[in-house]
Amino acid sequence: MFDQTPRQSVSTAATPGKTRRRPRVVIVGAGFGGVAAAKGLVGADVDVTLIDRRNYHLFQPLLYQVATAGLSPAQIAAPIRSLFAHAPNVRVVMARASGVDSHHREVRLEAGEPVPYDTLVLATGARHSYFGCDEWEKVAPGLKKIDDATEIRRRILTAFERAETEPNPVARRKLLTFVVIGGGPTGVEMAGAIAELAKRVLARDFRRIDPTSARIVLVEGGPRLLAAFPAKLSEAARKSLERLGVEVRLGMPVSACDVDGVQVGDERIAAATIVWGAGVAASPAGKWIKADADRVGRVQVLPDLTVPGHPEIFAIGDTSMAPGPDGKPLPGLAPVAKQQGAHVAATIRGRARGQAAMPFRYRNFGTMATIGRGAAVAKFGDRWLLSGMLAWMLWGAVHVFFLIGFRSRLRVLSDWAWSYVTFQSCARLITGQGSH
Amino acid sequence: MFDQTPRQSVSTAATPGKTRRRPRVVIVGAGFGGVAAAKGLVGADVDVTLIDRRNYHLFQPLLYQVATAGLSPAQIAAPIRSLFAHAPNVRVVMARASGVDSHHREVRLEAGEPVPYDTLVLATGARHSYFGCDEWEKVAPGLKKIDDATEIRRRILTAFERAETEPNPVARRKLLTFVVIGGGPTGVEMAGAIAELAKRVLARDFRRIDPTSARIVLVEGGPRLLAAFPAKLSEAARKSLERLGVEVRLGMPVSACDVDGVQVGDERIAAATIVWGAGVAASPAGKWIKADADRVGRVQVLPDLTVPGHPEIFAIGDTSMAPGPDGKPLPGLAPVAKQQGAHVAATIRGRARGQAAMPFRYRNFGTMATIGRGAAVAKFGDRWLLSGMLAWMLWGAVHVFFLIGFRSRLRVLSDWAWSYVTFQSCARLITGQGSH
Repeated sequence: MFDQTPRQSVSTAATPGKTRRRPRVVIVGAGFGGVAAAKGLVGADVDVTLIDRRNYHLFQPLLYQVATAGLSPAQIAAPIRSLFAHAPNVRVVMARASGVDSHHREVRLEAGEPVPYDTLVLATGARHSYFGCDEWEKVAPGLKKIDDATEIRRRILTAFERAETEPNPVARRKLLTFVVIGGGPTGVEMAGAIAELAKRVLARDFRRIDPTSARIVLVEGGPRLLAAFPAKLSEAARKSLERLGVEVRLGMPVSACDVDGVQVGDERIAAATIVWGAGVAASPAGKWIKADADRVGRVQVLPDLTVPGHPEIFAIGDTSMAPGPDGKPLPGLAPVAKQQGAHVAATIRGRARGQAAMPFRYRNFGTMATIGRGAAVAKFGDRWLLSGMLAWMLWGAVHVFFLIGFRSRLRVLSDWAWSYVTFQSCARLITGQGSH
Repeated sequence: MFDQTPRQSVSTAATPGKTRRRPRVVIVGAGFGGVAAAKGLVGADVDVTLIDRRNYHLFQPLLYQVATAGLSPAQIAAPIRSLFAHAPNVRVVMARASGVDSHHREVRLEAGEPVPYDTLVLATGARHSYFGCDEWEKVAPGLKKIDDATEIRRRILTAFERAETEPNPVARRKLLTFVVIGGGPTGVEMAGAIAELAKRVLARDFRRIDPTSARIVLVEGGPRLLAAFPAKLSEAARKSLERLGVEVRLGMPVSACDVDGVQVGDERIAAATIVWGAGVAASPAGKWIKADADRVGRVQVLPDLTVPGHPEIFAIGDTSMAPGPDGKPLPGLAPVAKQQGAHVAATIRGRARGQAAMPFRYRNFGTMATIGRGAAVAKFGDRWLLSGMLAWMLWGAVHVFFLIGFRSRLRVLSDWAWSYVTFQSCARLITGQGSH
């Protein structure tokens, strides 16, 4: 009844065949970088093992829409297995990697046998960094996983529900105050989306509270929003947010963060819901291989994306720090990770033919961030800046285009069209229990 | 910034106006019965408060499709507030009711002020009953809430993932064995859906295990499946399931149930995933009002659905036991609850005009259950029995028709069409942590 041996005729990593063993490529992490690397190796003369602790690939740039009830999880996630169902040389393992034995060339798993490799690709991504204040995480969750997003959604929606039954006006005001920490793309998008949820979607739903009176505060320690963008677009983003009713606080870091609210400079803001969109830190993959890493844990890589001293180990995406053309490190963006994944796949294919590795070069097609209904900012090359409605439509088109799977694209497009017309939001469910 | 008074000009329960106080109707539970009652009172000269501990109304008959990754939660749930956004006389309160003070006519909440009523509608539904073996719940979760469904989905999908990396064939066989307990509609639908998931959707996704070799066992203590249907349809259901590869065990109750599997008669079935689809027990609402209840806790009601001695308290749906035309209690089905809710609303409207209450009469338009792709059984009146493809198409049409919200209908329809053609399943995500 059960196969005792692998179903595919190719020899897999764990059961070497009797014929010439095919090179084993192990990829840890099925984010943008890892999936691009695996896709690039489909059909190549190697056995690929893709390890991830989740069973789905996540389209992270739209995760904030799950947190604000605009989309539901299944719309922005694709089962990893179905991405490679028709690729017999790619094996998917759902497991948590716990270390690398670079001497014996094995990836250790938290549970199960180690996975041997000839070539290793570390694409483990990044987590949120609380700058040493890890106790803030409980009150101010970040947004990296689907469970983060549904938890934030639960907190936001529950705050309105509790406000509706709260007789004390001070407590009610606190329940209707939402603080977003961090003025990067995630923070800007979250603040804009919470404002729209309160002022449009929920506007008619309550009898005792007025959701449109909710207070949304975006706090950024630096002098402007979207620091990676030109100053002109930062200013456009700030204006758009303020038009939506978001209070933007610049140049003021958060000095305290607890269940009652946050301390921003001299001001104490009482808030029941706090969302963390600030610093990121690389996963511990750098430590696994004892590589040189920067302050936030990103592995320093050579121009061909290999780890110094380990030509058989690549590090890509948020796990690594690759220098850009101007010498500054490349930003932690999906396009960088995807292009690096494809580059690594090409390098591995080339090596089999005896070709020398090419240095990685990032092609920047542009950067964009959205603020809310009909407002976004975008930058292409050094010349083109765009803001407002046109930038927003472009943002939507690009994001739908890059969503994995034709099906998801259609569904997200139709959902967006629907909610644009009706101001109805489809995914407004409070699930899970949570402690908050 | 905050309204200190209700936004609607109508006087609400908690803040009586100075004009003649409008009668206060409190409905506990926003399932089929509670929502139908509230819908029937929209625009009536009463103030309605609808209390539920969740913020969504759930289309329970399709919950098994969430558990088996066919649909995602947002597709079968509608936010209660949005159902009544345009009904100024209906107030929605998200809170857990903890009791009723029938003397002072107040519903007590777990947190917050009690809610006073003139008329009370108890529509709190049912929970699963483990026949005194409550310790079975942990290993064999039932299917009543969205969180149950995502938990069961997590267990089923994780079992396949773990089997893929399990070297021990005995352990692997256990991981690929699924036991469904209870041969009612829920059990039949679950068993059929798990079989389809294994044998069709996941068939190509794994490299080391063969999902089509998974063993699915449906255990029913009684002599046949779907006891509420005619014997001919029970037989058709059994045959359809067996054609899908489900082992059906009849006339054998489960005598033990633990993390290693179940004991059925003399046989020990080692299984990592067990789903409970057996007995139901009414919510504790009967105890709140100290009413006469049957063995499983359902409140005995008068023909007009009021509780004996309490003409101001109605009990409907799974909370109550109303006699049918043949003297036997009406079944715990969605149409019964919906018709009862509408009847209660009509009675309350009639009372305001001084009309006497009419006895409730259930109009049975038919019963149906689905088994899998292209197979269902249906019964209309006493004559019409239907099974196979035609019954299945009818089942689909009826379920989509009764889904709340035009939007959900379109989405579910398009998703079903898509997965029917492609054998792709949209909602195959493992979320949450879980202890299992």
